[in-house]
Amino acid sequence: MLDYAAVFIFALTGALVASRAQLDIVGFLFIGALTAVGGGTLRDMILNRDQVFWVADPMMITVACVAAILVFFTAHLLESRLKAIEWLDAAALSVAVPAGVGAALATGQSWGVVLIMGVITGCFGGLMRDVVCNEVPLVLKKGQLYVTAAFAGSAVAVLVLETGGRTGLALLACAGATFVLRAGALMFGWQLPVYRSRPPRA
Amino acid sequence: MLDYAAVFIFALTGALVASRAQLDIVGFLFIGALTAVGGGTLRDMILNRDQVFWVADPMMITVACVAAILVFFTAHLLESRLKAIEWLDAAALSVAVPAGVGAALATGQSWGVVLIMGVITGCFGGLMRDVVCNEVPLVLKKGQLYVTAAFAGSAVAVLVLETGGRTGLALLACAGATFVLRAGALMFGWQLPVYRSRPPRA
Amino acid sequence: MLDYAAVFIFALTGALVASRAQLDIVGFLFIGALTAVGGGTLRDMILNRDQVFWVADPMMITVACVAAILVFFTAHLLESRLKAIEWLDAAALSVAVPAGVGAALATGQSWGVVLIMGVITGCFGGLMRDVVCNEVPLVLKKGQLYVTAAFAGSAVAVLVLETGGRTGLALLACAGATFVLRAGALMFGWQLPVYRSRPPRA
Repeated sequence: MLDYAAVFIFALTGALVASRAQLDIVGFLFIGALTAVGGGTLRDMILNRDQVFWVADPMMITVACVAAILVFFTAHLLESRLKAIEWLDAAALSVAVPAGVGAALATGQSWGVVLIMGVITGCFGGLMRDVVCNEVPLVLKKGQLYVTAAFAGSAVAVLVLETGGRTGLALLACAGATFVLRAGALMFGWQLPVYRSRPPRA
Repeated sequence: MLDYAAVFIFALTGALVASRAQLDIVGFLFIGALTAVGGGTLRDMILNRDQVFWVADPMMITVACVAAILVFFTAHLLESRLKAIEWLDAAALSVAVPAGVGAALATGQSWGVVLIMGVITGCFGGLMRDVVCNEVPLVLKKGQLYVTAAFAGSAVAVLVLETGGRTGLALLACAGATFVLRAGALMFGWQLPVYRSRPPRA
Repeated sequence: MLDYAAVFIFALTGALVASRAQLDIVGFLFIGALTAVGGGTLRDMILNRDQVFWVADPMMITVACVAAILVFFTAHLLESRLKAIEWLDAAALSVAVPAGVGAALATGQSWGVVLIMGVITGCFGGLMRDVVCNEVPLVLKKGQLYVTAAFAGSAVAVLVLETGGRTGLALLACAGATFVLRAGALMFGWQLPVYRSRPPRA
């Protein structure tokens, strides 16, 4: 379930970026699917699972395609596509991070690896989308708390598990922590101090 | 055989892009090999095959290197390198897509996965070449029918197989459909309607 | 040991690039870790090893994080971060290439594959760092002998092994050859002739 939701919402963001790049319908499908399954694919390849999740369940790809088609016919109704991308991406991140944590737990990894898999599953789909479409990666934009939210969410999940909490609770807390941090950054400009002891170089 | 041909032609396109970036001979080899085996490597990693195709058969890399060296000494004879890149890339795409479809069939995947593997094998080598060399990805350029051609070719292969056709025929039809669509886009400007309900944003 | 050293030094370069991009501490960790383990992760996925090296030994990630934090608090002491990045990257390359060669030998690959794994392990971490941070990839900059040094180092290792030398000696010679070439390029501007029969195109 978590996987389906994350795939659907990430595909929406990918298709919205495709609309900004004025691609055709197949471009929407391509970028939508890349964003939707990119992070989880990398996770599964690194964990060397028998099958990447969408090879085991191709319905995942169908879900991503439905999302991309939906955006192709409705994106013009949005007032600000950039805002929609940011908020949908925040929602997708909050679902993808616990999905990644859950997948890592299912293969019995140590907590350090579980933590990293949450971050990878959450961040790399959007990172691939932005690199391919030549947008500044959200991951790197200042004052976004992007990786930080994914990292904190994963850490919360690990904490809950280590203190004896059940998996379901851990994933719920993970989603909540991720969303609150990311939403705080979007709404109130929450951020960590950035490195700025000198002006940037060319 | 299909694999060798796709590797050779994609390596030619990679080396031509390297010539536009004025790299040295090792740069030609690097970009040529990356383009040549990038898509198939990703395919094999996702399918979790025992060995990536060029690890099983390092002659593949040799073929790519021969192509890169050939271009290093002859690229100046071309009148338009950009045109040559586009047409060679179209040829490589028409060979790589059926190669990907064939590889996926050999591991007994469902037709949805077969379709996607055709697209991945065809499109990601060129995509990596363009991202690394900082060119606008051909995959995303308007009016190129790039992913569309790969997608349609894969779909034709699946259709032929599902209606009882033999594998050889399916791969041939796949190559033909891919090339016709891509060549039509290059020669006659065929394209799908693009998303353009609003001006692009910065 | 080689792996730890390569991870540490590459993480330093990644964190320095993060400082040029004015990221926050989590950004330092993210780019540092990506640079540190990117090349080796790709190597292990291509070789289909049972476990990616840092999944088998998560201490690797800790080492990368220590390096990133170190840079976060000391980067302002450097006179030229660009110079520091180049020299540290040269050191990391000289350690990562033999590490990659060693890993490929351990899985019993043919010498062609061993050679390529040296290049991949050495070059792709830095390449991912530069692509994600939108810097011109060092791999592609003119007059850097970057891939060339990695390639020559790997070739030296293969040569030593093929002529009956022991593994330890081969890896040492590999590190030496890589560093000498890269340092020569940085200090004396050594380079291979570049392809330049025509002006570059837009």
